[in-house]
Order: sequence, then C-alpha cells, then structure tokens
Amino acid sequence: MSDYTKVTLDESEIPTQWYNIIPDLPAPPPPPLHPATREPIGPEDLAPLFPMDLILQEVSQESYIDIPGEVLDVYKLWRPTPLYRAHRLEKVLDTPARIFYKYEGVSPAGSHKPNTSIPQAYYNAKAGVKKLTTETGAGQWGSALAFACAQFGLDLEVWQVRSSYDQKPDRQRMMRIWGAEVHPSPSENTEAGRQILALDPNTPGSLGIAISEGVMRAAPDPDAKYALGSVLNHVLLHQTVIGEEALKQMEKVGETPDLLIGCTGGGSNFAGLSFPFLREKLAGKINPTIRCVEPASCPSLTKGEYRYDFGDTIGMTPLVKMHTLGHDFIPDPIHAGGLRYHGMAPLVSHIYELGMLEAVAIHQNECFSAAVKFARSEGIVPAPEPSHALAAAVREAVRCRETGESKTILTALCGHGHFDLSSYEAYLNGDLVDYDYPDAKVADAMSRVPVVD
Amino acid sequence: MSDYTKVTLDESEIPTQWYNIIPDLPAPPPPPLHPATREPIGPEDLAPLFPMDLILQEVSQESYIDIPGEVLDVYKLWRPTPLYRAHRLEKVLDTPARIFYKYEGVSPAGSHKPNTSIPQAYYNAKAGVKKLTTETGAGQWGSALAFACAQFGLDLEVWQVRSSYDQKPDRQRMMRIWGAEVHPSPSENTEAGRQILALDPNTPGSLGIAISEGVMRAAPDPDAKYALGSVLNHVLLHQTVIGEEALKQMEKVGETPDLLIGCTGGGSNFAGLSFPFLREKLAGKINPTIRCVEPASCPSLTKGEYRYDFGDTIGMTPLVKMHTLGHDFIPDPIHAGGLRYHGMAPLVSHIYELGMLEAVAIHQNECFSAAVKFARSEGIVPAPEPSHALAAAVREAVRCRETGESKTILTALCGHGHFDLSSYEAYLNGDLVDYDYPDAKVADAMSRVPVVD
Repeated sequence: MSDYTKVTLDESEIPTQWYNIIPDLPAPPPPPLHPATREPIGPEDLAPLFPMDLILQEVSQESYIDIPGEVLDVYKLWRPTPLYRAHRLEKVLDTPARIFYKYEGVSPAGSHKPNTSIPQAYYNAKAGVKKLTTETGAGQWGSALAFACAQFGLDLEVWQVRSSYDQKPDRQRMMRIWGAEVHPSPSENTEAGRQILALDPNTPGSLGIAISEGVMRAAPDPDAKYALGSVLNHVLLHQTVIGEEALKQMEKVGETPDLLIGCTGGGSNFAGLSFPFLREKLAGKINPTIRCVEPASCPSLTKGEYRYDFGDTIGMTPLVKMHTLGHDFIPDPIHAGGLRYHGMAPLVSHIYELGMLEAVAIHQNECFSAAVKFARSEGIVPAPEPSHALAAAVREAVRCRETGESKTILTALCGHGHFDLSSYEAYLNGDLVDYDYPDAKVADAMSRVPVVD
Repeated sequence: MSDYTKVTLDESEIPTQWYNIIPDLPAPPPPPLHPATREPIGPEDLAPLFPMDLILQEVSQESYIDIPGEVLDVYKLWRPTPLYRAHRLEKVLDTPARIFYKYEGVSPAGSHKPNTSIPQAYYNAKAGVKKLTTETGAGQWGSALAFACAQFGLDLEVWQVRSSYDQKPDRQRMMRIWGAEVHPSPSENTEAGRQILALDPNTPGSLGIAISEGVMRAAPDPDAKYALGSVLNHVLLHQTVIGEEALKQMEKVGETPDLLIGCTGGGSNFAGLSFPFLREKLAGKINPTIRCVEPASCPSLTKGEYRYDFGDTIGMTPLVKMHTLGHDFIPDPIHAGGLRYHGMAPLVSHIYELGMLEAVAIHQNECFSAAVKFARSEGIVPAPEPSHALAAAVREAVRCRETGESKTILTALCGHGHFDLSSYEAYLNGDLVDYDYPDAKVADAMSRVPVVD
C-alpha cells in the first residue's frame, strides 16, 4: 500500500477563477442561431431567461473569470473535493495501472451539479431575481438548484418528469427539504402542461416537456428566470473547478495522467475535469489521451452527426451546432438518467471535431459490473452515470494487465448512487437490459433535424 | 464570514491509537454478570461470539490501544473527517454562539459506524473467522458491517427487523451491493425465527429477535462470529477517533468548547466524540459541559434506572449495569431508529452516574425542525439521530442570543439522512407524532427487570 489514499487540499486552495477554454482553441466554436431568422443570436435574445452576468460568461472571450467571494464561501461547504488513488480497485483488477478518481459526491446534493447551481443562484439573486424555474429528470439537477436557492434566498419551482416523480420520490423529498416547490411534468400549472395532459392524461412526461414548462413559467415573469444544469458554455465553465483542483492534486503527488476518462451526458462533468488538462496539453506541458464515455443507447458522439439542432425536444431553443441524435430522439430507459440527452454540449462537440478527444459507448451491464467491483473495493457506491467512466477505466486497467504498462489513469466520480440503489438491485438480479445500438431510431430522428447551411 | 468553514486534517493526522477512558476514571465500571450464576463473566464466556483481540479490548486497562495498519489503511478512505464551523446556521439563528460540528457522514456507509465495523471485521479475519452475523434495525449498522466485510473478504449474514426490511429497501440494497446476505427477521433460517413465525406469521419483528437470530447462527459455527454495532466497551473505544480528530481540529483553529453535545442511542457516537474531551477535562486542561441528548420516547438516561439488566429483549445476554427502561420496553415508533434502544452503554451510564455528564430528552418534531433549518443553511441533510443533537445545539444558541453569551458549542453530525427522507416528508406534511413521555410503560417494563444485589 502506498503512502497516501486520498490527496486533499486546504480550503484556501479552492480555485479562485473559472477557466474558459474558448480563447485557447485553434478555432472558435460556431455560434448559436436564432430558430426563426437563422442568424447568430445576441445577448438580448437570452435576456428573458438568464441574468446578464451569466449571458456574458456564455459568450466570454476571457481565459479566466473570477469566482465571486460569495460563491467561494458556499463552495467551502464541500470543496476542495478529494482525489483518490484507487489502490484497492487496482489490487482487485491485478493491474499495473495507477488509477485516480476525483470524487464530487461529497457535495450536499451528492454530485458535481452544485458547482454551477451555486453561481447560477448567486448571479440571479444579485440581479434582483426572486424566483428560478427549472426542469429535472431523475432529480440530480433539481436538488442541486434547490440547495443553491436555499443559500441565496430564492424561490424555486421545479418541473420533474412524471415517471421519475412517481418512481423515485427521494430526490423530490430532498428538493422540498431545501424549500423548493416540485411539480410532476406535465402539470396543470402551465399552458404547455395542460395541453399535453388534455391529449394524454397518463403521459409519463419527458425532459423536453419539462423544459417547456419551466421556460413558459419564467419568460413572461419579470421576477423569474430559468436555469439549466448542463450543455451551455457557462455551465461547463463553472465545472472547471473540478479539473483545476485535480491538476493541483496530481502535481502534489508527482503524477501525470496518461489517460483522462469522463462520462458524457450533456457534457458538463466531462468538461469540468478535462478542460484544465486540455489547456496544459495545448501548452505542450502534458500529453494525456482524453476519452469520453457515453451510454450505448444514447451515443451522441459515436453515432450522432455534427450539425445544427434544437436543444430541446419540442424545438423552442436556439439552434446549436453539436453532435446530435435528433432533437426528438427518445433514448431507451437506461438507469443512467443523467446521460439520456439527445445532444452533446456544443463546446465539447466542437473540441471533439477538432480531433482532441476520443469517444467510446458502453452498455449498462458492463457499467454496473464495474460499479459493483468499485463499491466492494473502494467503498463508495457510484451513481450510474460515472459507472460509465469506471467501466472504461476498468477496460484500460485490464489492457494494462495484459501489456504490462503502468499507465496513469484519471477519472471523475461525479456523484454517489444513494438514490439509484434500485438500479443496482435490478443489475444484481440479472434484470438489466443492454439495448441495441439505436441505428434505425437515430436515422429516423435525424430525418427531422432542420437543414442549416 | 470568517476565514474558514471547515477544518481539515491530512490523512497522516488520523489518530494511530484508540483511547480507553476506563483507567482515567475515578472508579471502575461494575463488571458484566453471567445471567445464570450472577458472577462476573470472564473472557472465555464471550469466546463463542467474539475473537480474542476484541474480548481483550473489551476488558483492557490500557489507556491507548494501537490501531493496526490494515485498519488505518481503510480508515483513509474517508478519515480524517471534516470539522465544520456552522457560520450559516449561526446567521439564521442570529446567535453570538459559535457552533462547530464534526461530520461522520462522509464514510462510504454514511455514518460513524464504519469506525468500528472496520476493526471488528479486521480482527475477525485475522483470527481466521470466515463469516460474521449481525442484526440491524433501519440498516445503518448492517450496511457499515457489509462494507467492512467486503474489505476483509468475510461473508456476512444480516438479520434485519422485518418492518424496516419491508419499508426501507435501500439499506438492504446497499448491503447486497457490498456482498452481504440479508434476511428479514424473524426468518425461516433459524430456530428462533421459525418458532416466532409459527406463533405469528405477520409479526413486524424486533431488534431483540434479530439479535437472537444472529447469535444463534454464529455461536455453534466454529467459522462464524457475531458483531455488535454499539453499547460494548470495544465499540465505544473504536469510535474515539472522532473525538481525537476533533480535539486536533479545534486546537488547530484555537477554539475550546464550552459545551459538547451528542445524541445517545446505544452511546457509541456520543462516547466517540466526548471521551477524548473528557480525558482533557479530567486532566484539568479544559472544562466543557457535556450533554447527552436522547429521544423523549426512549429516555434511558433521564427516565431509566441505573441497575443490572439484559442487553437484549429476550434476556440471552450477560447482565450489565446500565441506565435502562427495562429489557422488554418497546419504544414508540419514532423515526430516529438508531436511538430506539432500551438501555445505555454501561460505560456511558457509569460516567453519567459519576456526575460527569448532563442529559436531556427532546421530542422528534423539535428535532426535525432543527434538521430542516440546518439543511437549508449548512446544506447537509442530517440523519434523524443527530438531529437530536442539533436540536439541543439550537436551543443553546437561542439561549445565547437572549443572554448575549458567545459560547463555543461542539456537536457530532454522525450521519446523513439520505435513506430517511420519507421521515422528513412526514415532518413537512405535519404528520409526525410527539409521543408522550412513557412513564407508565417504563414502570411496567421495569417491573420485569431481574433484581441483582
């Protein structure tokens, strides 16, 4: 056993700036387009939904943006997060690989999401906003935003996809403990919800519908704004505290990663870990391979096309250039709910197109198998989302056992699985389905993506 | 906002010895008695159930016992745990009091229990034991022991009280993820279980029955031993890592507690925090008031008698001198399942009799009110058990607001409430009952406690 198991930092070492990768890229990302005019959108188009500080971060050309003291004070409740050397997992895998994981599950909401919910709530409160609205699927983002709104005295209304609302009551309870109002979506509270309920009173709902409800509630209300938990540039920006800390921690113990691995749904956790390492790679200081891991049933990078599409299912948002499976593609019901998004963050998509990232898609049984190995050796029960990154790390560690290489692997364990234990039960009982790669469904959904030249 | 929110230690600062308070006490605690002979029991009486290393710790007169390297290596997965200054709670309470809390919920099992499950599993594995058995109520202890057995390659069979088994499936799932076999109790797997099921197939079970099943399974099997999660001296001993770390952390920021507050069920979390501070108090270095907080519906210190009684409901264990409500006292169904025990650890009881501790009993609605205040300010959602300590801390902080005193209060937040969110829902809906102080029930149960002179 080596000298250390986890590498900790003092709270005085929390990064004081977020890192914006855009100015360092060899080419700028394509702009979002207005859905009607197909012209690049301006800050004023976003003003009904977001406060100006966040809009300016969304389009910023500055490499670094100072983290406000009020945000740092709340980050201190759980940051810096620990970086672990997975000694016990390595032993179980009998591998010469050196596996490190950055653990974000120590936040009060149990995932990396508060890294952005806290600044989003802060900037809204600073702008005089009284209420936020949002959508949530399984509830990770909704609970992170509820925690943040409690810190800054904001009201919060959450529309949670009805199937999750009914099946996983714990995340909903957590949001209420923090003071949020939670509606199943579709709801009777919005015109969009009422219309859909009139057509089908028993609909299970979808993230697209929930987004519509949140947006419709916020847009006409001068005291309310909307908040999004992934995909957008400012969200990815806030998450870079993960990678900045990990860089310091690896340096502290004299390690350099040969391979970075992150799971990708909307892309914010992956970007948070990898962008600061990409900066160092672009500067020629390190040279890690950087690998995205997505679910086989929702493979936006490995099976999607890179083109303009809507961010939501109904087609209300600006058109953004990204890897997409088609805005009305509905992924099979895998347990990693946080990875069931039809597109990939435009910024991650752009960097992938630049050839700076690899991507791989993995079926869920392999992911849960890795997660159980991890739980029995390292203790922590991972959320289903980062189990995708763990599965890829296990693959690489097994490869190292065969080749004898002692590669240094760094991955992000972006949350615990305390509210996902029923999916482990299904895995242990042999009840989990590995859905086919959705080629035909993707082709069908792609046929409805607008053509933009 | 002050300079620090949490006080962290490097993993090199994890205590390397457990502290045994017994030699420092002005009088030794009365010995356990054999239930038949009423003579003090010897190590050989305990040998069928526990490995010799743990039996020797149970009766040790040494002030310090070295923590084995193999145990320290596993402690490093989550220790040292953070000590927080509750700036945000203080602000909400508008109090001049300075509130600190030591947070044990960062362990993989989410509570302080792994501090003892890890050494218990280690010493059993070292003694060649292949399997452990135990009982669990809500599942905190069972899951902590499952995590520990996965670390040391031991099999584990858990008997979980049927009402909890049926109503709270998540803890059971967690035990299975870590590889344990879990039975509802009473079960068909033991003679005790079968007898009780024959009388009443629909019985909800009890901790006493579950203990009987675990003991009956282990005692005759040369490869199996039994493990207990609280009450015994060696369990309290292992928990002193909490207080040793807290002492260092308070010293690091130049703070001295005026008041220590801990919740008490079996007594292990309370002992873990307070015994190292008691040592310093006995040595004349500090002079904090030390306060136990128990549920109003299970008030062993404030309403129980100090006399010999059985540790289990059925009366199979040695007789131990403790504060007891009577071994067949069944507490009302409050949500802090971990505090629903008829007795108090003999060592905590003895120290209370010596006049070194205070005790107070609090109803559950006041506790959940404090817990929700805490969650909305400090972020962490507390387990119902430590919400008792938080309620007492809030009382004291409010008193300080009235008197203007800036007392330094230190409490232990011994676990998170991720698997107890339905009890918060009941509280927020106004459905929680504050049961009457159980004077008549206590008098009835006490009438069946054996008379020992």
